[in-house]
Amino acid sequence: MAEQRPQVVIIGGGFAGLYAAKALKGAPVRITLVDRRNHHLFQPLLYQVATAALAAPDIAAPIRKILRRQRNVTVQLAEAREIDTAGKRVLLDSGELAYDFLIVAAGATHSYFGHDEWAEHAPGLKTISDALDIRRRVLLAFEKAEHERDPAKRDELLTFAVVGGGPTGVELAGALGEIARRTLARDFRNVNPGSARVILLDASERVLPAYEPGLSDRARLQLEDLGVEIHTGVRVTGIDAQGVHTGDSILRAGTVLWAAGVQASPLGRSLGAEQDRAGRVIVEPDLSIPGHPEVFVVGDQAAVKHGEGWVPGVAPAAIQMGRHAAANIKRALKGQSSEPFAYHDKGMLATIGRSRAVAQLGRMKFSGWIAWMLWLVVHIFFLIGFRNRLAVMLDWLWAYLTFQRSARIIMEERH
Amino acid sequence: MAEQRPQVVIIGGGFAGLYAAKALKGAPVRITLVDRRNHHLFQPLLYQVATAALAAPDIAAPIRKILRRQRNVTVQLAEAREIDTAGKRVLLDSGELAYDFLIVAAGATHSYFGHDEWAEHAPGLKTISDALDIRRRVLLAFEKAEHERDPAKRDELLTFAVVGGGPTGVELAGALGEIARRTLARDFRNVNPGSARVILLDASERVLPAYEPGLSDRARLQLEDLGVEIHTGVRVTGIDAQGVHTGDSILRAGTVLWAAGVQASPLGRSLGAEQDRAGRVIVEPDLSIPGHPEVFVVGDQAAVKHGEGWVPGVAPAAIQMGRHAAANIKRALKGQSSEPFAYHDKGMLATIGRSRAVAQLGRMKFSGWIAWMLWLVVHIFFLIGFRNRLAVMLDWLWAYLTFQRSARIIMEERH
Repeated sequence: MAEQRPQVVIIGGGFAGLYAAKALKGAPVRITLVDRRNHHLFQPLLYQVATAALAAPDIAAPIRKILRRQRNVTVQLAEAREIDTAGKRVLLDSGELAYDFLIVAAGATHSYFGHDEWAEHAPGLKTISDALDIRRRVLLAFEKAEHERDPAKRDELLTFAVVGGGPTGVELAGALGEIARRTLARDFRNVNPGSARVILLDASERVLPAYEPGLSDRARLQLEDLGVEIHTGVRVTGIDAQGVHTGDSILRAGTVLWAAGVQASPLGRSLGAEQDRAGRVIVEPDLSIPGHPEVFVVGDQAAVKHGEGWVPGVAPAAIQMGRHAAANIKRALKGQSSEPFAYHDKGMLATIGRSRAVAQLGRMKFSGWIAWMLWLVVHIFFLIGFRNRLAVMLDWLWAYLTFQRSARIIMEERH
Repeated sequence: MAEQRPQVVIIGGGFAGLYAAKALKGAPVRITLVDRRNHHLFQPLLYQVATAALAAPDIAAPIRKILRRQRNVTVQLAEAREIDTAGKRVLLDSGELAYDFLIVAAGATHSYFGHDEWAEHAPGLKTISDALDIRRRVLLAFEKAEHERDPAKRDELLTFAVVGGGPTGVELAGALGEIARRTLARDFRNVNPGSARVILLDASERVLPAYEPGLSDRARLQLEDLGVEIHTGVRVTGIDAQGVHTGDSILRAGTVLWAAGVQASPLGRSLGAEQDRAGRVIVEPDLSIPGHPEVFVVGDQAAVKHGEGWVPGVAPAAIQMGRHAAANIKRALKGQSSEPFAYHDKGMLATIGRSRAVAQLGRMKFSGWIAWMLWLVVHIFFLIGFRNRLAVMLDWLWAYLTFQRSARIIMEERH
């Protein structure tokens, strides 16, 4: 009887939740996947929506479309508010869901390290709405500069600060450099977009601190080639309408983007398990939480030991965790005990701009054109949906041939 | 001396304004094109963004990119607030612009015939933001129905009313019929999207009243084929959260879309010229306004006699008017008198759905597949930008082969 099959609830349709659902295809369970958005988002390319290279639908696909052939899944558009582990139910903004097994994959959002007042001046990049906000701010800065007569104000409008030198910060800064120097080169009459300043700030001593020092150097050189100024070892003490404060000095910037901190979804709190400083739930080796072998936490929301450190918050790790949690549920259904998760590090890739990237694959390191090609191929390959792959390839080919960006549309906010 | 060349100000970067600017290429003038948005919008395909078939950037291109090689044009992102014809200047939200010649092409928006309170319950379709709002409402209605247990409420959520049987109403209703019956057919578990009701309402006796009666009949049959119910001769007396009121009865509908009335931009008022009931400025035969041969009004904002009636508010008419105003400015620069405008009616095309359309080209009438192919070819041809043409062709081919719509993304509003 289908009605008596165990109920699996998955919270979140990101990489971890989606791949968990897929891994349960054909399993004798009923699955409900809950997400507050109707789409799975290919986050590694979100910065390209923010920098007007791609349209939002290119990197998003409806979760229910992805899973429509998997008959044991029901998709529900709702926001999970709280988890009642004792009562085995998830409280939603509309109603509740009872579960036998739960996979929590609610992800992470940006964190301003306790300075939420910085958010309005320095948007972060986690959702499509964030990306369109950043796109709007960047394009409007050039528009305003074109008709600003005060030279000091014009310079301020043409100064872009990116806080955070990890992969997202590097990608955003590189793309801003290209926009100013290539894409917009001939579009304005009164200002020269090429005179725009793009400044990348980081508290640590080098960009891409998770990479080997040699690759950080390569990344720095490639960014500088695009005109990006790199300020490392800088501690941001404030962000407001004027720009970025660093101790006693201030960097006046009309546009500030935040790519520095990440905070796990607050949903983890209701689980009662220990959390790390970033709000990630510290899970057991099998990805379940202490005392609740039926509850798994996966993806960016989970803190999982890996050697000396922790499994990084990247898409391949989320996919592996989602699949592993699903495998452990299947084992439990057969009366078998769960297995510990082992992260397979396939390497790291960060792109900087046209023909510019760095890659670290085990002991192999690449930079420049070959790393960039590697990045392109991997990202096209993992994009969900054949049409999206075609569309993104078309946009990239077009951008490569013309230096143009096809989505330079300011979408206004509704009043 | 370039600085002494006459100043032409163009208000609006729609079809009329953009083609006026292009027609002044190489003319001994300085041109400033003002628009409150950064993009030209290919409005004939806007309903496809609303119905999730296309992404917004597919049908929009930055005005400054389109005109970047035309060195006598400056593009300014600003909103025109008032025109001072005596002082020959345009007052903007930021600053003002003096002119020697003025082309007013600020377009039209939807009109609720004095019932602005209907707007929140029945969005119209004029901007990208409108289109994304409609897309959100339509997709959310199915999402909510999937988890609604009250059958009456579920039926209400699955009822879509389109008010207005002109080309936009017909296109929206046809697309909604296809979405329910084909695109979403297998995506839901609890509801059958195919049971959705799509109702097209119009006060006149037939749909597409501007077309010959035979083509209206063909359009009606093609719509009914897609499951659309057509209620003609119906007078809408109210729209609220419950649905559409028509006299004493009420049509309960969770989603109501407005495609009925159009009102010219209020900017026309400050010109001091006579206006018709829809706020369009009644222009002289040469498209200038009485007493001001240096001020032209073109596009949807102009009321221009054509035979017994008026030039219709369609893209080809706007293009022709924009070019004509530009030609009259060039004549004035040479000391020649202006020439009257003559509208060349190239015909009308309205699409209903896959392989369904009607076309009226002079005495020739087409419907079905051949009209649809005609519609496709004309719309691809007039789309601005080679990349956009490629992208739209890819999306259409994809939709044709799979019945899918590639932009089924609910973009949330920012809080």
